[in-house]
Amino acid sequence: MTTTISPTETMEEKETGRLEAFSDGVIAIAITLLVLDLKVPLREAADQNGLVAELLKQWSTYFAFLASFLTILVMWINHHRLFTAIRRVDNNLMLLNGLLLLGITVVPFPTKIVAEYLQDGQANIAVIVYALWGMLIAVFFNLLWRYAASNNRLFSKQTDIELAKAISRQYMDGPLLYVGAMIIGYLNAILGILVIVALAVFFAIPSKNIRKFMQAEENTL
Amino acid sequence: MTTTISPTETMEEKETGRLEAFSDGVIAIAITLLVLDLKVPLREAADQNGLVAELLKQWSTYFAFLASFLTILVMWINHHRLFTAIRRVDNNLMLLNGLLLLGITVVPFPTKIVAEYLQDGQANIAVIVYALWGMLIAVFFNLLWRYAASNNRLFSKQTDIELAKAISRQYMDGPLLYVGAMIIGYLNAILGILVIVALAVFFAIPSKNIRKFMQAEENTL
Amino acid sequence: MTTTISPTETMEEKETGRLEAFSDGVIAIAITLLVLDLKVPLREAADQNGLVAELLKQWSTYFAFLASFLTILVMWINHHRLFTAIRRVDNNLMLLNGLLLLGITVVPFPTKIVAEYLQDGQANIAVIVYALWGMLIAVFFNLLWRYAASNNRLFSKQTDIELAKAISRQYMDGPLLYVGAMIIGYLNAILGILVIVALAVFFAIPSKNIRKFMQAEENTL
Amino acid sequence: MTTTISPTETMEEKETGRLEAFSDGVIAIAITLLVLDLKVPLREAADQNGLVAELLKQWSTYFAFLASFLTILVMWINHHRLFTAIRRVDNNLMLLNGLLLLGITVVPFPTKIVAEYLQDGQANIAVIVYALWGMLIAVFFNLLWRYAASNNRLFSKQTDIELAKAISRQYMDGPLLYVGAMIIGYLNAILGILVIVALAVFFAIPSKNIRKFMQAEENTL
Repeated sequence: MTTTISPTETMEEKETGRLEAFSDGVIAIAITLLVLDLKVPLREAADQNGLVAELLKQWSTYFAFLASFLTILVMWINHHRLFTAIRRVDNNLMLLNGLLLLGITVVPFPTKIVAEYLQDGQANIAVIVYALWGMLIAVFFNLLWRYAASNNRLFSKQTDIELAKAISRQYMDGPLLYVGAMIIGYLNAILGILVIVALAVFFAIPSKNIRKFMQAEENTL
Repeated sequence: MTTTISPTETMEEKETGRLEAFSDGVIAIAITLLVLDLKVPLREAADQNGLVAELLKQWSTYFAFLASFLTILVMWINHHRLFTAIRRVDNNLMLLNGLLLLGITVVPFPTKIVAEYLQDGQANIAVIVYALWGMLIAVFFNLLWRYAASNNRLFSKQTDIELAKAISRQYMDGPLLYVGAMIIGYLNAILGILVIVALAVFFAIPSKNIRKFMQAEENTL
Repeated sequence: MTTTISPTETMEEKETGRLEAFSDGVIAIAITLLVLDLKVPLREAADQNGLVAELLKQWSTYFAFLASFLTILVMWINHHRLFTAIRRVDNNLMLLNGLLLLGITVVPFPTKIVAEYLQDGQANIAVIVYALWGMLIAVFFNLLWRYAASNNRLFSKQTDIELAKAISRQYMDGPLLYVGAMIIGYLNAILGILVIVALAVFFAIPSKNIRKFMQAEENTL
Repeated sequence: MTTTISPTETMEEKETGRLEAFSDGVIAIAITLLVLDLKVPLREAADQNGLVAELLKQWSTYFAFLASFLTILVMWINHHRLFTAIRRVDNNLMLLNGLLLLGITVVPFPTKIVAEYLQDGQANIAVIVYALWGMLIAVFFNLLWRYAASNNRLFSKQTDIELAKAISRQYMDGPLLYVGAMIIGYLNAILGILVIVALAVFFAIPSKNIRKFMQAEENTL
């Protein structure tokens, strides 16, 4: 069976389309700017100690880069997931999405702090700042999602309510989990970063309930 | 009821589509480049005074960052709003849109000036430069909009004339409001920046008339 | 009359769609990176001579910025114009388009050279390098266009052959005009840049033949 | 004959659409950031030796820039080619695509290393690092492709199985070829870079089997 596109649907598509495109742009740039912090070792030092040794000395920079790349990538995947449910845009959503983009855009800054201070006496403070920012972004994600989801405000008729509830449940824990990362970072800086990486993996993998829904959807198609 | 897409409509869509995509790209990059000015404190200073103290010292940088992020975000929202009305593209519009993008692209420069000089004796001059640039962008917005709107030159048949008039009215005040910000910035630098933030909020929220239209439209769908 | 989209057409659309999107991205970034060269005056100098005086001293930087912003903008407009005619993509076109993007991407480099050396004894050499690069890009534009246009290789049935011929005629002069800019830049650096700005304006405005076609097209719609 | 779009197809389109758009964004930024490493010669040196001489001295920077621009461009062309076959997206694909983007995003870093050290005693090590990174990206490409292709997991009914097999065959050699480049780079640094450039050309040109398929497809249309 084939259907044609109704004017209402195309309008909705176009609306979320441009918001998604703009968000994709911002997130793509934020994730790519991270590479600017990978610095080439100075020639004097490299000529004395060897280029490989000087490259390896910068391990904290690579570590911070990888953690932030993974974190932003997972944020993009989540943004993508949310907007399979959110199908309409209003003015408030544009501002809440802007707040979320603010959060993601800033990530290269705490990343640089960690890269610079992870091999220093103040490593714990650097990691706490990093986790604090992660917590803020988790709050922004919740604000965006709750606004769109309350009373199915910005959903379409196709949006599955069970999926929406499953997302709400997984997101609610986000801010608290980052508070946990802050506490662990206070005790051990490197462990704190590893917890943040683990959190990214946690949000990358959809919860059981979300997956159940996704499979059901695929079977329907 | 379902309709099919006529060739004329798809051509229009494609036309504004690529202009919007290019503008989204430029605005997304400009808003993301702002983060490059958040500098990590030097290790020597941080080891002496503490990393947190050194981070807090940079408050003018964060303040300028937030003001500019909000300002560019609201400019994007407005660009988005205008192009729900503008549905056709001609050569002049591409140039006027380019002028507007020039304005938005440069924003990181006055931002850096404010970040550097807000804690300095010449803070007022920095804020005046910043507000001056905001005024220029407001002029560019008016040029673009007036060109597209005069005689409904680049509207489609679906464009609501009342909405267009409401936008014209809100925009006309833009340049003057920024002149106000310049005067206030001359008297008190920080107050000047706060006025610019308030202006962003003013342009983020659609005027009563625009909102009335938007609700009417939603009811029609 | 309304028609539906045939599968062949949508496939073509998608093909040029992603090439255009990627090109838009690259051009949008190149044009936005230009702002990174607008440097905030050092505080010591500004405290002594005044911030405004120090800002004005950098006029060559602003001049180079404006010339390059306009040039890249017009290149985007031309890319956009070409791809209203080119509707199919093959492997060679992707490489030729890549060559063109290489040219556009590098523009910030000669821009920086001009910004740095326009107030210096070697201003003429800086302008010649700048014009030389413009000439190269004009050659790349010709290569791309001639490949797509020869035997209407990558046109669709809707592509107007008269429009294509008019574009070919205007483009053929491009490289020679930039050689002229090099010669003028050798005699007078600032005049050389002004000629390059004038060339951008020349390519921004479609030639009489192209405009005639565009109006004919609009009347048909 | 004309057909209309079924809801299933549009959903698939939208799915790969946003992944492709995000990837385009990241690749476009990575390829454009390369220009930031083209540095303007210092004025003191240029005033003494001439601007042209100082520009020519930086040949290793231009060489590395060109090699990396070509490499990233060809990676984009390949990404584009893969996604003419891959028509559906799942969570794992998003992560594998993220891994590939990580690889591409980092390219400016080994590029800088080569630019800095190609005229130095440790040129061979720089080229080995560069080739090593190319090998990693080749592995990521294989992971992405094999995941999507095994059991035609993410293909649509239109995907040609012969084309898929031809791509698999060409990709399998990728990592090994880069190991070859590492060995050659160990013996002669510049030759090593030239081999990497040759590899880019090799992957730019579709293999005979892929081309055969493409022509067949064009004849069908």
